[in-house]
Amino acid sequence: MKLTILGCHSATPREHKHTTSQLLEIRGNLFLIDCGEGTQMQLRKSKIKFSRIQHIFISHLNGDHFYGLIGLISTFRLLGRTAPLTIYGPKGIKEIITLQLKLAKSWTDYELHFKELESTVSVPLYEDEHVKVATIPLDHRVYTNGFLFSTKSEKRKIKSKAIAGLDLKPFHFLQLQDGFSIQLENGNTYKNEELTAAPDPPKQYAYCSDTAYNKALIDRVAGVDLLYHESTFLELHKELAKKTKHSTAKEAADIAQKAGVKKLMLGHYSNRYSDKNDFIKEASVIFENVILSEDLKSFSV
Amino acid sequence: MKLTILGCHSATPREHKHTTSQLLEIRGNLFLIDCGEGTQMQLRKSKIKFSRIQHIFISHLNGDHFYGLIGLISTFRLLGRTAPLTIYGPKGIKEIITLQLKLAKSWTDYELHFKELESTVSVPLYEDEHVKVATIPLDHRVYTNGFLFSTKSEKRKIKSKAIAGLDLKPFHFLQLQDGFSIQLENGNTYKNEELTAAPDPPKQYAYCSDTAYNKALIDRVAGVDLLYHESTFLELHKELAKKTKHSTAKEAADIAQKAGVKKLMLGHYSNRYSDKNDFIKEASVIFENVILSEDLKSFSV
Repeated sequence: MKLTILGCHSATPREHKHTTSQLLEIRGNLFLIDCGEGTQMQLRKSKIKFSRIQHIFISHLNGDHFYGLIGLISTFRLLGRTAPLTIYGPKGIKEIITLQLKLAKSWTDYELHFKELESTVSVPLYEDEHVKVATIPLDHRVYTNGFLFSTKSEKRKIKSKAIAGLDLKPFHFLQLQDGFSIQLENGNTYKNEELTAAPDPPKQYAYCSDTAYNKALIDRVAGVDLLYHESTFLELHKELAKKTKHSTAKEAADIAQKAGVKKLMLGHYSNRYSDKNDFIKEASVIFENVILSEDLKSFSV
Repeated sequence: MKLTILGCHSATPREHKHTTSQLLEIRGNLFLIDCGEGTQMQLRKSKIKFSRIQHIFISHLNGDHFYGLIGLISTFRLLGRTAPLTIYGPKGIKEIITLQLKLAKSWTDYELHFKELESTVSVPLYEDEHVKVATIPLDHRVYTNGFLFSTKSEKRKIKSKAIAGLDLKPFHFLQLQDGFSIQLENGNTYKNEELTAAPDPPKQYAYCSDTAYNKALIDRVAGVDLLYHESTFLELHKELAKKTKHSTAKEAADIAQKAGVKKLMLGHYSNRYSDKNDFIKEASVIFENVILSEDLKSFSV
């Protein structure tokens, strides 16, 4: 998994502060998570071939998380896209997008699917041979979901050097990938460990923005490799966080600590703070392995 | 009049190419014309106090002219705006904006008015003591208007140095501003020209984007001080211009020449051209006083 932060700021975009959007790459598949205004420009800056995005997950319908979606959909059309695109987001998102396409007389030439969400319990959204995606219900002023991306257990990796010169049939490859030892036609036997290496372990990425401090999250994100948890505020503005149903850096760290995640990433910073290191300072008192999201920075999970 | 180009490119925004938006300042009033995605970031870059904008004119509902509007409206709310804002644009614009505000549960705290347009003949939109704004019906794939901004004849300017030491009553000022000579209580008389200077002559700015070559424009923009006329294409792609109901640089120049405007500004460039000077070269064969719009550049009218 490779996570690229396209924007990690809250409320309104500024010259050097972009609103929320993230691109998650899992075995060559690109998943876009939220899409604030200007996301398509950030995608261009990131030099990622963003026409490969086939699934877009929108957490909620506040502008700093989806005002860039209609522009991206239109740009895909102008770039001659033919591959289908699926949008997962709160009920109402289809009406917003299709109304704008209708009034602009600019229907897409590719299939545009919507999976509208209203469930307040976690639901599976997507699955392929490598990854599963499910919602993480959040507690915000409007209906909001986070998303849990889980890679699946992979088959064992065949070592190309180790099998050089061996007369392997197709079924031998399948046996090796499934962990079996093999016997060749000439009678020679090979232990599985001689010819294969263990696969990468499954990984989990949990995306949680925007949300009030919410103990129900602890079970839902337990043990994930990376938890992105919003920290719009510092404890200094704890009351404001409560009122606006956002979290402080300390609260994010508390969830991370109680859920036993491997790493915590903070983000969705309010524009009122000039030094982002104050978020790290506040969180790391409670949870040590904490990092800051940063526009256009990439992270390996 | 001072015109600031926020974006002058067509179709999709790129890292250094912003889609259409212009800010026109007339005697301290700010009028925003079109609002492509990212316009609010361009406004921040321009260092203009954009909270002063009270009127936004949207030519048509193609994304490169209005996808930034909802973000700007939301940002005004987040910045604590209280002044009313009026949006002038094609029928449907109110539904698009209000649907998004409703689903985000983020109604504005300021008065948001819509004047929806459907007329295919020119209609007056706005008038105050200094300026009048009217539509210029254009010929495009969707319902589109340009806008004609006309300043009014102003009163004569009183020369502060010339009146120093004179015992003028309030009615003397009014007489002078209206062009009359005056007689003071001590019997002294003063010719108007001694104490006043001629006002700035009225100015006209015509904004025409997007449109096919359209002879009906000639009368509508006759003699304006500055004509912004789209030139999405060069003559090399004349057929494409015709098909998509856009204009070439030569066609824009032809309108400017026939309408006897004082200056022509080109813009709405297709991303396919690397050298914008080719637009000037093509247009200036027909009309000499031609300039290029350029993102974040300001022009006096």
